Amino acid sequence: MTTTVFEGASGADEAVRAAHAAFLEARTRTREERASWLEAIADELEAHREELVGLAGEDTHLPEARLNGELTRSAFQLRLLADEVRTGAFLDATIDHADPDWGMGPRPDLRRINVPLGVVGVFGASNFPFAFSVMGGDSASALAAGCAVVHKVHDAHVGLGRRTVELVVDALARAGAPDGLFSGLIGLEAGTALVDHPLTRAIGFTGSERVGRLLLDRAAARPEPIPFYGELGSINPVVVTPAAWRERADEILSGFVASMTLGLGQFCTKPGLLFLPAEAAERAREQLPALLRDAPVGAGAMLSDGVREGFLHNRELVQDTPGVEVLLEGGAGDPPSPALFAANAGDLDADSPVLTREMFGPAGVVVAYASEAELLATLNRLPGQLTGGVHGADGEAVGAIASALTDRAGRVLRDGWPTGVTVSYAQQHGGPYPATTSGTTSVGTAAVGRFLRPVAFQDFADADLPPELQEANPLRIPRRVDGVWVRAEGA
Amino acid sequence: MTTTVFEGASGADEAVRAAHAAFLEARTRTREERASWLEAIADELEAHREELVGLAGEDTHLPEARLNGELTRSAFQLRLLADEVRTGAFLDATIDHADPDWGMGPRPDLRRINVPLGVVGVFGASNFPFAFSVMGGDSASALAAGCAVVHKVHDAHVGLGRRTVELVVDALARAGAPDGLFSGLIGLEAGTALVDHPLTRAIGFTGSERVGRLLLDRAAARPEPIPFYGELGSINPVVVTPAAWRERADEILSGFVASMTLGLGQFCTKPGLLFLPAEAAERAREQLPALLRDAPVGAGAMLSDGVREGFLHNRELVQDTPGVEVLLEGGAGDPPSPALFAANAGDLDADSPVLTREMFGPAGVVVAYASEAELLATLNRLPGQLTGGVHGADGEAVGAIASALTDRAGRVLRDGWPTGVTVSYAQQHGGPYPATTSGTTSVGTAAVGRFLRPVAFQDFADADLPPELQEANPLRIPRRVDGVWVRAEGA
Repeated sequence: MTTTVFEGASGADEAVRAAHAAFLEARTRTREERASWLEAIADELEAHREELVGLAGEDTHLPEARLNGELTRSAFQLRLLADEVRTGAFLDATIDHADPDWGMGPRPDLRRINVPLGVVGVFGASNFPFAFSVMGGDSASALAAGCAVVHKVHDAHVGLGRRTVELVVDALARAGAPDGLFSGLIGLEAGTALVDHPLTRAIGFTGSERVGRLLLDRAAARPEPIPFYGELGSINPVVVTPAAWRERADEILSGFVASMTLGLGQFCTKPGLLFLPAEAAERAREQLPALLRDAPVGAGAMLSDGVREGFLHNRELVQDTPGVEVLLEGGAGDPPSPALFAANAGDLDADSPVLTREMFGPAGVVVAYASEAELLATLNRLPGQLTGGVHGADGEAVGAIASALTDRAGRVLRDGWPTGVTVSYAQQHGGPYPATTSGTTSVGTAAVGRFLRPVAFQDFADADLPPELQEANPLRIPRRVDGVWVRAEGA
Repeated sequence: MTTTVFEGASGADEAVRAAHAAFLEARTRTREERASWLEAIADELEAHREELVGLAGEDTHLPEARLNGELTRSAFQLRLLADEVRTGAFLDATIDHADPDWGMGPRPDLRRINVPLGVVGVFGASNFPFAFSVMGGDSASALAAGCAVVHKVHDAHVGLGRRTVELVVDALARAGAPDGLFSGLIGLEAGTALVDHPLTRAIGFTGSERVGRLLLDRAAARPEPIPFYGELGSINPVVVTPAAWRERADEILSGFVASMTLGLGQFCTKPGLLFLPAEAAERAREQLPALLRDAPVGAGAMLSDGVREGFLHNRELVQDTPGVEVLLEGGAGDPPSPALFAANAGDLDADSPVLTREMFGPAGVVVAYASEAELLATLNRLPGQLTGGVHGADGEAVGAIASALTDRAGRVLRDGWPTGVTVSYAQQHGGPYPATTSGTTSVGTAAVGRFLRPVAFQDFADADLPPELQEANPLRIPRRVDGVWVRAEGA
């Protein structure tokens, strides 16, 4: 059997070279074939559901129901992207016919389309053994774009990672994809070599701000810099207006506790800050600790010792911040019992750990604000976020708060909780730095766009153009023609 | 009168703060208002055509006809972008209705739209005093996106730059735009401070690879890295097939000479490498020097002493490369008379100055290839390019060559010459590094996309959404709804 998981710098080199050769071959195939490869992978993962969920449980301590749901999500994502590959919408096909009367002088025939970048390196996340790992969103969207993928398996689930790579490679081989289109790497040395390799054209990463920044800087310092699509974490502020508090305080408090403790708080979208009007503070201080003590956090340990240590470290930093009060002391066991802190918005500088430190685990801070002006000023001090939420009363105008959140986040929620990220066309999972290192999304169909670049063909004969740009639009994709969007007949 | 052109680090700080305040105000205005601002600028530039062309002539030594054409181009670009702002196509508005039966679990209502980044810093180019300068493509597309712009005037045309900034600021004020939405900076210290300023959200740059890389590294090393959209030059290979040579050798040679010497070769799209089949070499060696001696290069000096020195330096590096033969010795005057060199494809390593050094001025290299295999191998050693061209015989299939060029360039031309870059919907002016530092374009309507980021709104009431995302589509923009592109009625 062919090697599918490589180690060390020489292993990375072998994997990237094979991936590059496979990329060159794969782009001679049709989009329909590429779509079928994604579906073959989805089928294979589901066919081995029991085995994979078992391996994931051993590696991550996550409960079986959650893992089953995540595997379903990953297979769904592959099939949605397969459909997206078929529509060709992400090609952004644009046609300008030659125009002798164009306002700045005669215009040639110009036709632009997006082409895949080449070999993409993907780093798996610790907290989603399926959805952001071997065949998670980054890998799936890079393959959908027409790229080859070399995946660095997360150290915390090597057993699951190896097996998933094997299954993906098997599925691709049986579906007729070129050898080497997908492979896995193990270990730091191989991962570093992947970022440095001259044939690597982009990196997808989900992980900590510290490691993410190291790799971002490394990608930027290459002789030929490459895009680094990193998702580096988020604190996810949620604001409750006075009117919403008066309307449904209990519902809000229980919603917060459920979202904050879901999966032991090990989600990048965990709501870490709950902004409450000052008048709500007393009641929240009384009720939240009790609700948290009763929260069904489960018996499982945290994802890994490293995750647990990082969480306890950041929890301590927040807890020790001057002005921070402990409402519920968190445990030191594994899993640690939930912790809750309180602070006043007016006390928080832009560099306060409360506003800058993600506690990746079951902990949060209730921030009391004295006025909307104080609230907005505090929101404006937050760094970039994946999400921001506002809970208002029925029909209440929340424009100023939503606007402040929009400035800092990629997804803004009304009356909801940020955990649970659907995979769809309009999804935006990514926000200003450090939430992500670019303005793009890593979830949803738009994620494909990260791994493409545009090329324009000038004055080519119809037969020499990619079919998507030929005059008759034989593959019936949506296109923009002479400035007007045209939906293909029958599409 | 308000200050409009600032100097030094404190001047940059003042300009950026004012721009940020203006950005916050400007985004409360309608897209229709924004479009009218762009048109007001276009009108103002044209109303002062004689004065501006006069100033540009003094600063750049470029002939009046060229400068008039460039001003026309810049005004056209502003008006085309104004129309683009009205269509709202670049907003990429995407709506997913709530769906309880969505395949991975119930889907909330999600609506995504692109929002402007904020303050954009733009560095003007030396070679286009209008089209890539104060109100060139970067400034116009950033304003179209809804951003504020602080423009670093190029040192080589400070007189023209100051006056253009004044006119733009006047036009914006009379059109009702907020104060500070556009301003100018003079000098290195101010330019550096612009890249470093915490409120600067992106940089547009056109210039040399050396300066571009310095600024790129600086933007990447910020505590919060920002996108750096740099266009750093290109060599622009053009391939002639044996059949094309047999069909129309004279036309090809005269076309090459005209394109290579246009504007004294001071275009980033100047064809610097002409790949000819070996059998064509003898005739080309005889005819090209004579054609170049007769080329109407004009009496004007080069753009600046710095440009001339850089050109002579790189010309010498190419000329002194082992294996390079001098077909026509270039002059050392100002302007330098055209130079032409010859080399064999098989002799060129990937680090040969022939393949890597842009000679920004009237000089080029004829590269003889012995076979298509040798040609393709040489093309594959080229770094990223803005353009690549192939001249084939009528009806000849040029797929392999076009494919190799597509791998390395953003615009691929059939039977044409790369100088002359139309502003349109399908234009792609940008290619793999070092041609540009990103996969985006700096020319055409797609340039707007560089200065936007997506935000998704989850479960918002219709009235709280931006009008472009409201259910009834009151502004009638093209949108993708539940995965299907919908062109608005009447749009």
